[in-house]
Amino acid sequence: MKNKKAGNQSVFFQNPPVVISGYSVVGPKEGQGPLRDSFDVILKDTYDGEKSWEKTEAKMLERSMRGAIDKAQVPLESVDYILAGDLLNQIISSNFAARQLGLPFIGLYGACSTMALSLALGGMLIDGGYASKVLCSASSHHDTAERQYRLPTEQGNQRPMYAQWTVTGAGSILLADAGNGPKLTSATIGRVIDYGETDTNNMGAAMAPAVADTILNHFQDLNRPPDYYDLVLTGDLGVLGLQLVTELLKRSNLNIRNTFTDCGVMIFDTEQDTHAGGSGCGCSAVVLTGNILSRMQSGEIKKVLLIGSGSLHSPASALQGESMPAIGHAISLEMQ
Amino acid sequence: MKNKKAGNQSVFFQNPPVVISGYSVVGPKEGQGPLRDSFDVILKDTYDGEKSWEKTEAKMLERSMRGAIDKAQVPLESVDYILAGDLLNQIISSNFAARQLGLPFIGLYGACSTMALSLALGGMLIDGGYASKVLCSASSHHDTAERQYRLPTEQGNQRPMYAQWTVTGAGSILLADAGNGPKLTSATIGRVIDYGETDTNNMGAAMAPAVADTILNHFQDLNRPPDYYDLVLTGDLGVLGLQLVTELLKRSNLNIRNTFTDCGVMIFDTEQDTHAGGSGCGCSAVVLTGNILSRMQSGEIKKVLLIGSGSLHSPASALQGESMPAIGHAISLEMQ
Repeated sequence: MKNKKAGNQSVFFQNPPVVISGYSVVGPKEGQGPLRDSFDVILKDTYDGEKSWEKTEAKMLERSMRGAIDKAQVPLESVDYILAGDLLNQIISSNFAARQLGLPFIGLYGACSTMALSLALGGMLIDGGYASKVLCSASSHHDTAERQYRLPTEQGNQRPMYAQWTVTGAGSILLADAGNGPKLTSATIGRVIDYGETDTNNMGAAMAPAVADTILNHFQDLNRPPDYYDLVLTGDLGVLGLQLVTELLKRSNLNIRNTFTDCGVMIFDTEQDTHAGGSGCGCSAVVLTGNILSRMQSGEIKKVLLIGSGSLHSPASALQGESMPAIGHAISLEMQ
Repeated sequence: MKNKKAGNQSVFFQNPPVVISGYSVVGPKEGQGPLRDSFDVILKDTYDGEKSWEKTEAKMLERSMRGAIDKAQVPLESVDYILAGDLLNQIISSNFAARQLGLPFIGLYGACSTMALSLALGGMLIDGGYASKVLCSASSHHDTAERQYRLPTEQGNQRPMYAQWTVTGAGSILLADAGNGPKLTSATIGRVIDYGETDTNNMGAAMAPAVADTILNHFQDLNRPPDYYDLVLTGDLGVLGLQLVTELLKRSNLNIRNTFTDCGVMIFDTEQDTHAGGSGCGCSAVVLTGNILSRMQSGEIKKVLLIGSGSLHSPASALQGESMPAIGHAISLEMQ
């Protein structure tokens, strides 16, 4: 069989899978932000009629999955696999959403890198001949994540200015072996990198080295010039993490600064008081399925590199004195 | 490209990846059980010199990964990806083990189905042309899992007789595109199925319907007769779950009873007071890398179907009144 590996960490797709649809569901705060016009559904409140935020998150994720399938106008049964993950212990949002759809399910954990990871793997399953349609999904919910990772939001604790705000959002992309839309042309799977950051509020600092490593490996593996992409987008480093990666890339002489931004920076206005910007699996999922896909479809941007960034710690590992290992997974989308 | 899908949920491998090595690390209790002679490492105590059981679990998993690579006598850098998961929140055992190896890492969550899931995906990545070597790993630790899912073991709570005993163990398999060993010939990805079981001690009952569904789909998708395999092995249903699946298959007229058993039933003697048998990602991982691989290599058994079974609930979902969704993923190994 033909080798589809490039360099140490990347693969390219011989028959690039196509993003035939994307669907995003967000919470009210995200719906007041600068990207509000790009989302499919904006919830009126963070419960959406459920008794717990965990139930709301699973419902949002299911809604995004069904939304992507409906938008593509394909039957549910034509989808070969769901590849999904979220931030909650045992990825319950994904498990419960997948239960409702009844499709073969592959559960992933990549923290905030999940959307990029699910697309990378989904691409390999389609281009490899194991599927014709794969649903790639991720979600997060501000109130479920904050109470699990840090403190219950009902307490109203003050957050440090360098903390990011976990996005309430769920996004799904339907990848297919044929159709119209941006093509998934390559993927770079990240390594776990840990520079010793121990402050679990400082996610941007923990993730920056892993993200820079993946970006450098992506450009090197695929031998692409720094200006190859119209947009290089991390998800989600926030304002401070983005600055750190910019500095790390500069030191490695990779100048992509003019086209470089972050989903967590894009999703909120500074007046929204989210401090360092958005985070959570749902952030890059809804920015990609909302804003980015529509800009690609309109022709405004043609080549995009998304680097999902995940901090792989847990509250227990942090309490046991461990630093925060992190990872970055990259995928490239190209409109031809 | 050639379609490698079979039926609704299964795939077959055109160039079946080879299990070139396996390595198992277990705790003292597992080392006193009937499979003691098949494990590579038996720890003297459940801490192994670490300050917390969580750190011990990550160390065991890393040891199994390095063990599989060393046994195959290949350089660390020749491994394209690690595919791993465990039971702990945010799969920290896998994240921290992967940090130590520095290889591209794909994090999975499938509860006790993880070993089968990692092999299924690993097979697709190799046969699809995206990798030549993939490390597939899973771990669990009795004391980390019990305190996270149920109660701290230091309390000495009485467990119901139908409860399973989470295995302390880590197993890794190195899959490769060439070499000697059992071949991975097919995989069946499961659906999330939930019959409404809410007792988190009754894992076997929660998982049985999903496992039966995957077994039935496997035989149907690949059009294999019920006596195709020398051994059909679930991991891990325990004594009661195995009885339930046997009953469900009987009702569906699939008679594989003579060759049908469970990793959780195999790993402990009834005198070891584990009640319904073993469970946990590590159980099927060490039974496969220990007992099963050596029996295949010796020629005693030639065709094996492993169905990893996972309960996809969390303590939070159970406390919120949700039932336990479950999944089964199957892989077939054949010695030719």
